[in-house]
Amino acid sequence: MENAFSDRITDVPKSFIREILKVTIDPSIISFAGGLPNRLFFPVKALQQAAHDVFEEAGDEILQYANSEGYLGLRQFIADRYRQQEGLDIPVDDILITTGSQQGLDLLGKTFLNEGNDLIIEEPGYLGAIQAFAMYRPRFHPVTVSEGGMDITALGQVLGERQPKLLYTVTNFQNPSGISYSDENRRAVADLVRGSSCLIIQDDPYGDLRFSGTRKVSFKRILPANTVLLGSFSKTVAPALRLGWLVAPHPIMDKLIIAKQAADLHTDSLAQRILYRYLCDNDLDLHIATIIHQYGKQKEAMIGAIQQFFPPEVRYTNPAGGMFLWVTLPEGMSSMALFEAAIKKKVAFVPGTPFYVDRKDSNTLRLNFSCSDEPTIVEGIKRLGDSIKKLY
Amino acid sequence: MENAFSDRITDVPKSFIREILKVTIDPSIISFAGGLPNRLFFPVKALQQAAHDVFEEAGDEILQYANSEGYLGLRQFIADRYRQQEGLDIPVDDILITTGSQQGLDLLGKTFLNEGNDLIIEEPGYLGAIQAFAMYRPRFHPVTVSEGGMDITALGQVLGERQPKLLYTVTNFQNPSGISYSDENRRAVADLVRGSSCLIIQDDPYGDLRFSGTRKVSFKRILPANTVLLGSFSKTVAPALRLGWLVAPHPIMDKLIIAKQAADLHTDSLAQRILYRYLCDNDLDLHIATIIHQYGKQKEAMIGAIQQFFPPEVRYTNPAGGMFLWVTLPEGMSSMALFEAAIKKKVAFVPGTPFYVDRKDSNTLRLNFSCSDEPTIVEGIKRLGDSIKKLY
Repeated sequence: MENAFSDRITDVPKSFIREILKVTIDPSIISFAGGLPNRLFFPVKALQQAAHDVFEEAGDEILQYANSEGYLGLRQFIADRYRQQEGLDIPVDDILITTGSQQGLDLLGKTFLNEGNDLIIEEPGYLGAIQAFAMYRPRFHPVTVSEGGMDITALGQVLGERQPKLLYTVTNFQNPSGISYSDENRRAVADLVRGSSCLIIQDDPYGDLRFSGTRKVSFKRILPANTVLLGSFSKTVAPALRLGWLVAPHPIMDKLIIAKQAADLHTDSLAQRILYRYLCDNDLDLHIATIIHQYGKQKEAMIGAIQQFFPPEVRYTNPAGGMFLWVTLPEGMSSMALFEAAIKKKVAFVPGTPFYVDRKDSNTLRLNFSCSDEPTIVEGIKRLGDSIKKLY
Repeated sequence: MENAFSDRITDVPKSFIREILKVTIDPSIISFAGGLPNRLFFPVKALQQAAHDVFEEAGDEILQYANSEGYLGLRQFIADRYRQQEGLDIPVDDILITTGSQQGLDLLGKTFLNEGNDLIIEEPGYLGAIQAFAMYRPRFHPVTVSEGGMDITALGQVLGERQPKLLYTVTNFQNPSGISYSDENRRAVADLVRGSSCLIIQDDPYGDLRFSGTRKVSFKRILPANTVLLGSFSKTVAPALRLGWLVAPHPIMDKLIIAKQAADLHTDSLAQRILYRYLCDNDLDLHIATIIHQYGKQKEAMIGAIQQFFPPEVRYTNPAGGMFLWVTLPEGMSSMALFEAAIKKKVAFVPGTPFYVDRKDSNTLRLNFSCSDEPTIVEGIKRLGDSIKKLY
């Protein structure tokens, strides 16, 4: 039979990153291509104990269908943490547990986007967000993000000419660039959005992974009525559990819950209970401190090696947290061509192209530093530097 | 700020069943309203052991991001089971693990439906499917299901006049009616669909819960190129894990994986590993036999009580499996009015209305028999019979 697929699914190409990751399965390749947290820091024993305990205590209750909003204890933990960490007062009813924060993006697309609606996205921007929103066929308006945050002039222009429904941001240690928005930039963005019907989606999977400097102000504080927050336990505890959350006020939350029910009824409640028990019995901040300490050293190793082995014309970000940094090759140089050359030297990365809404090539690339130890990072950057010099 | 929601989410009303279930939280109410499996049969100890073992053996591996298709071992188990139980030869690459089979519905809607596309749905039909598909704004064509299966004349008419992309069926012990399609009816449906581009979605969460009779032929056998299968562990093991699956051939599966990645990247892989370990170390069919034995007795108790306490004008289905039966009140009687009266007598059910695409009231209702013991069933049906007689 002929398959008449929907327009939305016909438009979306096969994931480029998936194809790249297949190449890097070869264990002799040093890969800076992945986007994974380092498995050395997964709290295996503590989660095993938590799993044992919830089965022991809650028995059959944790195995039954549950409510779509998510487990109350876990939502309370998230609310308490917002209060402690950011001084934000979030009612527990404004928190929805999602099947990873990826699902939060899908639910927001479903709840807000008609075909052709305007949506502002960072450029470069998070690929998973581009993919999730693309399913609802909006008109993407990319606004450049560089050191310090969003291009305010360009943002003002889009807001002046169009009526965007959503503005998607990763304000802390952005994927792919590692860039954070300064407080001033956040306030400037908020000033432009204030009074419009545009909703800011502040996606913050990396905010807790800060190596240096101090926490920046949340859009939820400076523009609460226009802000939705996304969060995740994937980078601080473990990604396999697929546990994220979404913060939205009452009239929006009602609609999101309808979308959630249609999507998967509710998120795995055994996983929610195991995680909650883990969070009650362990010190999350102590655990995060261990991760930060190592990621920070790895980032320093990568920056040091770049300074040593890359030609001085190559620019790069120096993130204060997260898992990625962003490299800009000299104008006109192709990161796709560099990828081909680098693979021959057994080192991999993700070319910048998929992080733009509509480009065939670019002179930028993403490097991941969370998954390799320091000697491996130095060796990999040395090989990559050789490839750049050869191509340059 | 004003919230400009999408058209799709504005159209979908708040779940009627959710509202009803709130009423039945009162423990003094005998509830036949739920749609839950009986928690007495959740294999708590065996799953606890499985969780312990997978942490012990697979350590950090099970906590990392995983592939979107799902855990290979679990997909192989599903393929093997199709071979053993139904003689179907399903390649493991045609199996996608979903976050409950509810997600399978969402992914199929996303992959196939443009706004206004034609879709055939059973009437009465599964509410979760109506909700999932409604998000993609198709034109619903309800076709009546009654004892023995689908109305072939009505189906032929829709297929003659329109070009439906999808035909949604629950062929075994349907929710809400308990009806199963006969082999003859399945072949007649297949004959009508053969040669068209309509895809049959055969959703089968209850097929394993058969009390009597023999397994009926799968659409996958009689019309393989036009058939997609949905399955679930929610009714045989436990729903909280949110583990279902979708079977589709190669060109469709490629698109479904794109939709899956955009939806939640992958299904909780800790849950997948725990379930797989449970399935390896325990006899699923023996476990199912225990469930069937009890559900079968409860169904008999309900049928016996209906015969004793309902007026003879009331009709009802007598399912050979599953969790529900379907009651048809005398013509013109309102099941909504009966609901109001029954709640006063402390017994609850779901009026038939939400199981139709477009009705405000109906003379039908759904009764669940999986969650109450036999004396409770008899007492509840007695109260309901009193309410019917009073209203009649």
